[in-house]
Amino acid sequence: MNPLRVVLVAPRNPLNIGAAARAMSNFGFSEMRLVNPYDVAFREARSAVKSQNILADAREFATLAEAVADCGLVVGTTSKGHRLLQHPLRRLEMGGKIVARKLASAPVALLFGSEKFGLSNDDMSHCDWLLRIPTRDQHASMNLGQAVAVCLYEIIRHPTAAKATPEPRRAANAGDLDRVVALLEEVLDRSGYVHARVEGSTRMKIRRLVHRMNLNAHDAEIWLGMLRQILWKLSAADAPGKRLG
Amino acid sequence: MNPLRVVLVAPRNPLNIGAAARAMSNFGFSEMRLVNPYDVAFREARSAVKSQNILADAREFATLAEAVADCGLVVGTTSKGHRLLQHPLRRLEMGGKIVARKLASAPVALLFGSEKFGLSNDDMSHCDWLLRIPTRDQHASMNLGQAVAVCLYEIIRHPTAAKATPEPRRAANAGDLDRVVALLEEVLDRSGYVHARVEGSTRMKIRRLVHRMNLNAHDAEIWLGMLRQILWKLSAADAPGKRLG
Repeated sequence: MNPLRVVLVAPRNPLNIGAAARAMSNFGFSEMRLVNPYDVAFREARSAVKSQNILADAREFATLAEAVADCGLVVGTTSKGHRLLQHPLRRLEMGGKIVARKLASAPVALLFGSEKFGLSNDDMSHCDWLLRIPTRDQHASMNLGQAVAVCLYEIIRHPTAAKATPEPRRAANAGDLDRVVALLEEVLDRSGYVHARVEGSTRMKIRRLVHRMNLNAHDAEIWLGMLRQILWKLSAADAPGKRLG
Repeated sequence: MNPLRVVLVAPRNPLNIGAAARAMSNFGFSEMRLVNPYDVAFREARSAVKSQNILADAREFATLAEAVADCGLVVGTTSKGHRLLQHPLRRLEMGGKIVARKLASAPVALLFGSEKFGLSNDDMSHCDWLLRIPTRDQHASMNLGQAVAVCLYEIIRHPTAAKATPEPRRAANAGDLDRVVALLEEVLDRSGYVHARVEGSTRMKIRRLVHRMNLNAHDAEIWLGMLRQILWKLSAADAPGKRLG
C-alpha cells in the first residue's frame, strides 16, 4: 500500500467520504485523514459504505497542521485556476507525476477541501504547492469523490504498463489466412459466385478482402468452421438424391 | 464541445446519473445517452442535480444498437481484467489516447454498464474493444460516477499543456539575491553574529544559504522589506539617546 495520505478537510457529506474511500481502495491507497469532519457525516460514512477498512483506520485531527506534520510534501487541490497567485500551481498531469516520484522517498499529503468552500487560504498556507484538475473554466468545481478518484488515477497512471498490455489474441498468421481464402474460394466457386473467365482477378480480390479482415487466430478458426459447414451444405445440395434428414 | 457519446446502459441510481453528467460538464463533454434507464432514477436525476443542460438533452434509447448506431468506434468499459478473452482489452492510459485520436474524425461511444452488473456479454458484442481502468484486482469495481470521471479525464488529459503551465511567479534573479545577501550580512553584522576574524567564510555561508532558499522575485522583495525593518530597529537600538516613540 501507498504512503500517500488523502486528507479531507472539513468534509460534510457521508456519501463523499465513502466515495473517497472507495476510490482509494480501487487504486491501492489506504491512509485517509480527516480534519475537523462533520461528525454525523463521518459516522454515517463509517457505517454505510464499502472500503470499510480504510474508513475504520481513518484518523481524525483537530487541525490541518497536525494532520500533515509527518509529510515530506503537502499538496492542496483547487479548482480555481490561475486566479490564485499565492502558490505555485501545477496541472494534474504534471503534479501527479511529481507526487508519485516523491512518494518513493517520503509520505505525501494530498488535501481536498470541503464540498462547499474548498480549501481556505489558511489551509493553503500549509501547502508546498497546489494541484489543479484540468476542468473547464465555466464549470471547474468537481464533486469531491470524483476529484479524489481522478487525482489518485493520475498518481497510479502508468504509461509503460499500458503499452505492455497484451492483446488477448494472437493475430492470425499467413497460413491461417490462406486456409480461409482457400475455403472461401471453394464456397464461392460452388455457389456460382466465381465465373471461370474472371477467376484470376476474383481470387485476388478475395485474398485482399480476407487480409483486410484483420482476423485473430481464434476468429480465423471460427471462419474456417463456418465455411466448412457451408461447403458441406453446398455439396449436399449438389447431390439432391441423397437425403439430408 | 466534444463528439463523445457517454452511454449509460441500464443505470439505476439517480445520484450516479447526476455524477456522470457533472463529470461530463467538468471535462467539456455534452452528449449523454441512456439505454433502458430505470425511469424513476432518470427523472430524479433530471430534477435534482447540476449539469442540467446535459441531462435535459440526454436521449433515451430502447436498445444499445440504436444508441450507438451513428458512432465510428464503440468502446465498452469493464473492471474484469484479463479474464474476458472475447474482446481486445486496453488499459485506460492507452485506450483513452486511442479514443481521443478517433474523436478527431468520428463520433465515439463510451459505454458504462449498470451499477450492479456492468455490461452484459450481449452489450459487449456491440463493442469494438474494451477499456479497463487500472484498479486493483482485489477491489476492481468502481463507482459509476467516479469511473466516468476518470475515463473522461484520461481522454482530455494533455501532457504538453501540463508542461506549459507557467509557475505563477518568476524566480528571483541574481541581483535580487545579491540585495538579500547584502542586507542579511549587514543585519548579522550589526547583531554581532559576524565576527571580524571569520567574516570571509561567514559571508560565503550566508550567500549559499540565500541561494538555497529558492526565492521567487516576490518573496525576495518581502525578505528585503523584513531585513530593512530589522536593520532600522538595530540602528535605533545602537543610538539609545534617541527616543523611539
